[in-house]
Amino acid sequence: MIKVGIIGSTGYAGQQLVWLLHRHRETKIVFLSSYNYAGLPFSNVYPEYYQFIQDLCIDIHTVEKKLSSIDLLFIALPHGKSFAITKKALDLGVKVIDLGADFRLKNTTTYKKWYGLNHELPEFLSTSVYGLPEINKKDIKKANLIANPGCYPTASILALAPLLKHKIIDPNSIIIDAKSGVSGAGRKANVATLFAECNESIKAYGVGCHRHTPEIEQEVSNIYGQDILLSFTPHLIPMNRGILATCYGSLVEKISQEDLYKIYEDFYKDGYFIRIRKEIPQTKWVKGTNLCDIGICIDERTDRVIIVSAIDNLIKGAAGQAIQNMNIMFDIEETEGLKFISMTP
Amino acid sequence: MIKVGIIGSTGYAGQQLVWLLHRHRETKIVFLSSYNYAGLPFSNVYPEYYQFIQDLCIDIHTVEKKLSSIDLLFIALPHGKSFAITKKALDLGVKVIDLGADFRLKNTTTYKKWYGLNHELPEFLSTSVYGLPEINKKDIKKANLIANPGCYPTASILALAPLLKHKIIDPNSIIIDAKSGVSGAGRKANVATLFAECNESIKAYGVGCHRHTPEIEQEVSNIYGQDILLSFTPHLIPMNRGILATCYGSLVEKISQEDLYKIYEDFYKDGYFIRIRKEIPQTKWVKGTNLCDIGICIDERTDRVIIVSAIDNLIKGAAGQAIQNMNIMFDIEETEGLKFISMTP
Amino acid sequence: MIKVGIIGSTGYAGQQLVWLLHRHRETKIVFLSSYNYAGLPFSNVYPEYYQFIQDLCIDIHTVEKKLSSIDLLFIALPHGKSFAITKKALDLGVKVIDLGADFRLKNTTTYKKWYGLNHELPEFLSTSVYGLPEINKKDIKKANLIANPGCYPTASILALAPLLKHKIIDPNSIIIDAKSGVSGAGRKANVATLFAECNESIKAYGVGCHRHTPEIEQEVSNIYGQDILLSFTPHLIPMNRGILATCYGSLVEKISQEDLYKIYEDFYKDGYFIRIRKEIPQTKWVKGTNLCDIGICIDERTDRVIIVSAIDNLIKGAAGQAIQNMNIMFDIEETEGLKFISMTP
Amino acid sequence: MIKVGIIGSTGYAGQQLVWLLHRHRETKIVFLSSYNYAGLPFSNVYPEYYQFIQDLCIDIHTVEKKLSSIDLLFIALPHGKSFAITKKALDLGVKVIDLGADFRLKNTTTYKKWYGLNHELPEFLSTSVYGLPEINKKDIKKANLIANPGCYPTASILALAPLLKHKIIDPNSIIIDAKSGVSGAGRKANVATLFAECNESIKAYGVGCHRHTPEIEQEVSNIYGQDILLSFTPHLIPMNRGILATCYGSLVEKISQEDLYKIYEDFYKDGYFIRIRKEIPQTKWVKGTNLCDIGICIDERTDRVIIVSAIDNLIKGAAGQAIQNMNIMFDIEETEGLKFISMTP
Repeated sequence: MIKVGIIGSTGYAGQQLVWLLHRHRETKIVFLSSYNYAGLPFSNVYPEYYQFIQDLCIDIHTVEKKLSSIDLLFIALPHGKSFAITKKALDLGVKVIDLGADFRLKNTTTYKKWYGLNHELPEFLSTSVYGLPEINKKDIKKANLIANPGCYPTASILALAPLLKHKIIDPNSIIIDAKSGVSGAGRKANVATLFAECNESIKAYGVGCHRHTPEIEQEVSNIYGQDILLSFTPHLIPMNRGILATCYGSLVEKISQEDLYKIYEDFYKDGYFIRIRKEIPQTKWVKGTNLCDIGICIDERTDRVIIVSAIDNLIKGAAGQAIQNMNIMFDIEETEGLKFISMTP
Repeated sequence: MIKVGIIGSTGYAGQQLVWLLHRHRETKIVFLSSYNYAGLPFSNVYPEYYQFIQDLCIDIHTVEKKLSSIDLLFIALPHGKSFAITKKALDLGVKVIDLGADFRLKNTTTYKKWYGLNHELPEFLSTSVYGLPEINKKDIKKANLIANPGCYPTASILALAPLLKHKIIDPNSIIIDAKSGVSGAGRKANVATLFAECNESIKAYGVGCHRHTPEIEQEVSNIYGQDILLSFTPHLIPMNRGILATCYGSLVEKISQEDLYKIYEDFYKDGYFIRIRKEIPQTKWVKGTNLCDIGICIDERTDRVIIVSAIDNLIKGAAGQAIQNMNIMFDIEETEGLKFISMTP
Repeated sequence: MIKVGIIGSTGYAGQQLVWLLHRHRETKIVFLSSYNYAGLPFSNVYPEYYQFIQDLCIDIHTVEKKLSSIDLLFIALPHGKSFAITKKALDLGVKVIDLGADFRLKNTTTYKKWYGLNHELPEFLSTSVYGLPEINKKDIKKANLIANPGCYPTASILALAPLLKHKIIDPNSIIIDAKSGVSGAGRKANVATLFAECNESIKAYGVGCHRHTPEIEQEVSNIYGQDILLSFTPHLIPMNRGILATCYGSLVEKISQEDLYKIYEDFYKDGYFIRIRKEIPQTKWVKGTNLCDIGICIDERTDRVIIVSAIDNLIKGAAGQAIQNMNIMFDIEETEGLKFISMTP
Repeated sequence: MIKVGIIGSTGYAGQQLVWLLHRHRETKIVFLSSYNYAGLPFSNVYPEYYQFIQDLCIDIHTVEKKLSSIDLLFIALPHGKSFAITKKALDLGVKVIDLGADFRLKNTTTYKKWYGLNHELPEFLSTSVYGLPEINKKDIKKANLIANPGCYPTASILALAPLLKHKIIDPNSIIIDAKSGVSGAGRKANVATLFAECNESIKAYGVGCHRHTPEIEQEVSNIYGQDILLSFTPHLIPMNRGILATCYGSLVEKISQEDLYKIYEDFYKDGYFIRIRKEIPQTKWVKGTNLCDIGICIDERTDRVIIVSAIDNLIKGAAGQAIQNMNIMFDIEETEGLKFISMTP
């Protein structure tokens, strides 16, 4: 059994981790920690768990005392908050999966520019691994520190990777128009995410300046082999869960829908969680799962390709992917605890 | 392995059965049938299941040919449609769980009055069992034909049973004000359940005349030992899933909240799926589960008791309860395939 | 032109007042005040109003300086916050309509018990008028201080008044099961009213202890002529606007649906905003309007009557009713600025 | 008073016309017609209108008899259905505003290709006017037949027109990623638009092949002065109303955000309903209004411009724009009946 601890267990992503770990057959949760709810039973914060999870949430000081008793630490904190505890854990030989943004960008100048903070652990960036298993599985296997990808980057990179690997599109033509449910904004009290503010409306936000942009650029540049700048526009949708990324690129040369479909099928042939669809996917097809559904459309009129990917932002976009990374790191079946179909409607 | 077939597998309740059976360790689905989608892959109707369920939907004639190869038939059809196939199955020694309304009412006159149809199999009513396991487990064990309870009756009867068993309230004082998500209305094309018709509104319907009324009355009368008439008012809520039943009764004599809590705890001490809560439950606490959460409030000002129960209408209110019944009938662990926590948010 | 000021203009009810007054032909808004947004343009808080409302929000000190320049002050503050400014306004001869709870309960002991505060202006309670025009129009005409009714009480009292006036039901049998959209919870940052917390769920709250209970009891007792205690249970519904009140009472003697319909029609024959419906109403029928739709059902099986009323909680349940009261107080056509149909869907 | 008739009055767009005309001071509704509900009171279909609209819906034969008594006919029918009645009306000297698609495309080959029908009245296409007032006001003034724009084209063309007029972007670089509420799909019984199918999900549809594509292309080509092909991807959002169009184009040369803002302000200086915003708009800012809000973002990293426009699909995207066209055609104040602010929340 892998002994794990979770920091930030009462945010939406942290809580989703608890849910997934509860049904994982090879793990044991040693502690749950929470900044706002330390000292309270976890099931007071999430009454869904009553009679299933008995744990009290502990504070960060208690976490430090228990660090040496675990094999793996999950961190689900806002950016800038995970440096100190990550260092302590790694120094003790505890592996770390950080669901936050602090180890995703390899370039500390880029980190400073987009997040407005100095990076406090640049020495870890050379060995930390960007935890997108369908792209980086080999490195994940050997990693001690995983930067778990952002939700939008997961959907976007998975949609674009085969196009870039095979140089099918002009790298300067990429536009990602993404849509997310409101749980992506987290569980903090905030007027802008009140029910009556979000319901019956849609908005774009962070236009031209969302922090997931450099993360996507870093990864697609790696795949393409050359620096790429792209446009990324997120939107807020009145639903709890789900991300749909509609990605556009200009074809370098003609390709048929069938050939492109085969390229995607082949690229993801070992990716249990990737389903290349004959239809354009909807977020409900993957809601509550670790799946990423991808649909392909060649628009012959404009010589563009349109790729639509759908994920659950809290699972494949956060906690599920973290479990998948854990499974790989600890040499468990990659799909353990993650093989489920969306519950509909 | 229990070999099962499902008739009406493409309705919401039928589909939920498929979902649950897919993860049940002791069953094998032999066939899925559908009136509207016969001949099509099940995953065309529900693309969520792509790569998980490969079955084609079959028609009723093919069902009849395959009947002898199964141990158990689930029927999820509108009322009046299950008589013929039920008889055929039982005659072949195949057990039947009917998720529809045809075997719930023991009195054929009552059936005729509320459903407007003659009952075609009155001879089966003496041996069919109303499949509410927390009340009728012993009979369910021995039954060949289960009338799986309606969604509203499940929430209502579970809320009221301890009050009536212990004669805590005046049986003439019962009012059930229930609220359901829209999936309760089924998956047929219908203007009244279009998104733009249901969203941003709430309505009462079937006021004074909903067909679940006599079903609730029959069961609470059995528990109380005397005929009870009650008021039941369902409402349609703009959400996919969930039923909340707010039940009112006048106390026969004073009782404290604590004592009543103990009575409920004791009444349901063997009921894994019943959680007696210290707070008033919300439907999201049980969404996607087979749980029924129950909250209790003694209103000392008015000498009334208010019981609020919450279920998922498609699981504890339909398919999950059907699986629970199956487990009992086939002497499997009652909770097999049903032990999961609500995924939130 | 009536010169008006609004305190608390950036809450949902206050903002709805601004919307309604903007299209009212006989008023001029002299100032808008806000605690949280003083100094900012109103259209920064509500970008909907850009180019329509140019006003800056002022603070309470500036309000005091401008008090003498207005004829009428609307106050939309939390309970306990309106005493001082109300006194100042009335002393200056400015009429006041308080949308909060501070002058609704005539009994200061009851106020203390339910709101946990000492009433600071008991001397005003004998002349203040409970501003439900369909019941108290004569007194409203002459009032200087109006206690604008709560949203739930408006729906509940309008539903019950004819039954009580004509002593059709047992006054001890009243149960009000009410459902409200989330805007009723106000616009403050709060985890419990986040989109992802409210969406896809329904809950009861304040069971047996909601503060609108004594308000309803006071008014229906006045109508009936004797003290009444009743059960009132509010529920939170995942929609922005609307209240549906499902009200139950036991008939004292048999009455037909037709006769009861006539009693309601007659009782409200001068009530432009009350529509007695032949069907059970839905909240969308009145969304965005000052209407109250009422449906009637005699349940002959149980000798109960079930009345369902629907209002828009922010209009007939708050700002619209305040305008209606203003119209009456200032001898304008009662319907001025309020004659509109619900925009659907 | 302008005497008007409405064909297709019980669809969502038709009904919105009724709502708007009811409050328009210069029109009189002579008849409402409906295919599905002929013979029924309009307020049976939309109970919101009870006591406000008393009309019975008439059938198409009765329409023909009454045609000569009106000045203007609004047609809100599916494509292919308006040819015959349009001809009859125009022959009688009755002006026509067609909210459907039949007269929007000037090229009958394009019509055939995208709609799969032969155009039955090609001789009317040279004089019919595409009724987007902010672009074509002069021609609308003199027109007898108006092709009222589609909802997506309205949002898209208004967003793009200044860019194209001033040749700011590469005409081959245009991508429109649009999002619509479910009312855009109409009010017909349909599984795909059931509440439980649309809620909690988002999908793209008609990718690369939506019929509004050639309509947008025709109009932006006219503005630019040269044929343009573009990518247009619509998405379905779980809300009742609203369209957000996120439009991307590559800058031909550098331009500052401020300069572009001025260009937009200037281009729409006579457009009462166009608000150029300093922020990126949300659909709720314009919900229930005839406004189009436009936000501008220069993305200097990628040398792209991103324009986001927001409209109400049933008002500026359908019925409100039709009224605006009527006002212009009949030389009434352009804003008559259309000057209102969004009701929020």
